[in-house]
Amino acid sequence: MSREVWKPGNMLYPVPAIMVTVGDEEVNNIITIAWTGTVNSNPAMVSISVRKSRYSHELLMKHREFVINLVTKKLARAMDYCGVKSGRDVDKFKEMRLTRGKAVKVNAPIIEESPVNIECVVKQVISLGSHDMFLAEVLAVDVDDSYMDESGRFNLEKANLVAYSHGQYYTLGENIGKFGFSVKKKVKNKIKKHR
Amino acid sequence: MSREVWKPGNMLYPVPAIMVTVGDEEVNNIITIAWTGTVNSNPAMVSISVRKSRYSHELLMKHREFVINLVTKKLARAMDYCGVKSGRDVDKFKEMRLTRGKAVKVNAPIIEESPVNIECVVKQVISLGSHDMFLAEVLAVDVDDSYMDESGRFNLEKANLVAYSHGQYYTLGENIGKFGFSVKKKVKNKIKKHR
Repeated sequence: MSREVWKPGNMLYPVPAIMVTVGDEEVNNIITIAWTGTVNSNPAMVSISVRKSRYSHELLMKHREFVINLVTKKLARAMDYCGVKSGRDVDKFKEMRLTRGKAVKVNAPIIEESPVNIECVVKQVISLGSHDMFLAEVLAVDVDDSYMDESGRFNLEKANLVAYSHGQYYTLGENIGKFGFSVKKKVKNKIKKHR
Repeated sequence: MSREVWKPGNMLYPVPAIMVTVGDEEVNNIITIAWTGTVNSNPAMVSISVRKSRYSHELLMKHREFVINLVTKKLARAMDYCGVKSGRDVDKFKEMRLTRGKAVKVNAPIIEESPVNIECVVKQVISLGSHDMFLAEVLAVDVDDSYMDESGRFNLEKANLVAYSHGQYYTLGENIGKFGFSVKKKVKNKIKKHR
């Protein structure tokens, strides 16, 4: 095994592939974004990075609000389409037959077909070069209650979410453990040993 | 289908689960981070968010450099361990039998078992509440050349990368298309139609 050294580039993968809705009831758009992430736990905060030339950039600067709509395998085609087409030319909701829903805390619409809508208000815009980073606080999270089970647990794993890695989209695959699994005591083995 | 509205929370998934190396040749550590993402294409920039109480926070503030090491299924146990243990108490390289390698542009070590190491220099630190966000520029990307094929293509998909979603770790699953697949003309079908 040896290493090749490349010049600087975007190689942090896998990343989310989300649909962001912007605008208000009359004028709105969907933009697909992979340059996004959670940036703070408390208060819950996220960032999205958007090229200045994008139609959604205008709407973000005007309204300073947006909604992150998580993307399932079923929504993957629409998600890809919303990443390559411009809202200046097409109504992406109409073209992709997505349902504009009402958010609770912001004027931007939600995509009703998405299992989770994260309503955000922009706190700061930082120009980084090709992109502006919108740092935002989460105001509310709307979830499709068909993923709730009887015990009140939200089964996000059933939503079949999509990730983006090096030019390709993937579903999630094998579950390889829960946060903390590496230090969890193996109770069963212990009992065996003591027998 | 109806919606439940939750109070603000971290529900943007799936996200990366990466191992970040910090420090220098003598004093260094590995911290697992899911609150990370690409924030700019040109120049290539990333962010990582770290709690102020973390040992790695000290090292980041001192050196203002770090390396993002991508995580494969094989590295998942070490990655989880590096997220729950503190570098104040254990030498994570030693405990997880990881190899400290030398980076090209920064003093922070790389993890040689990782397929991709992204060398970064901190440009700005923004306090957001529970976490500080470190905005950083990518200086170099080191890749394990065993993933290069004869045509010079880097096959990241063979690395079996790990994502984090709602408390669980997953490998990537089904490939559902390439960026732009939704608008690609189906050449084969077209030819058929014209026959």
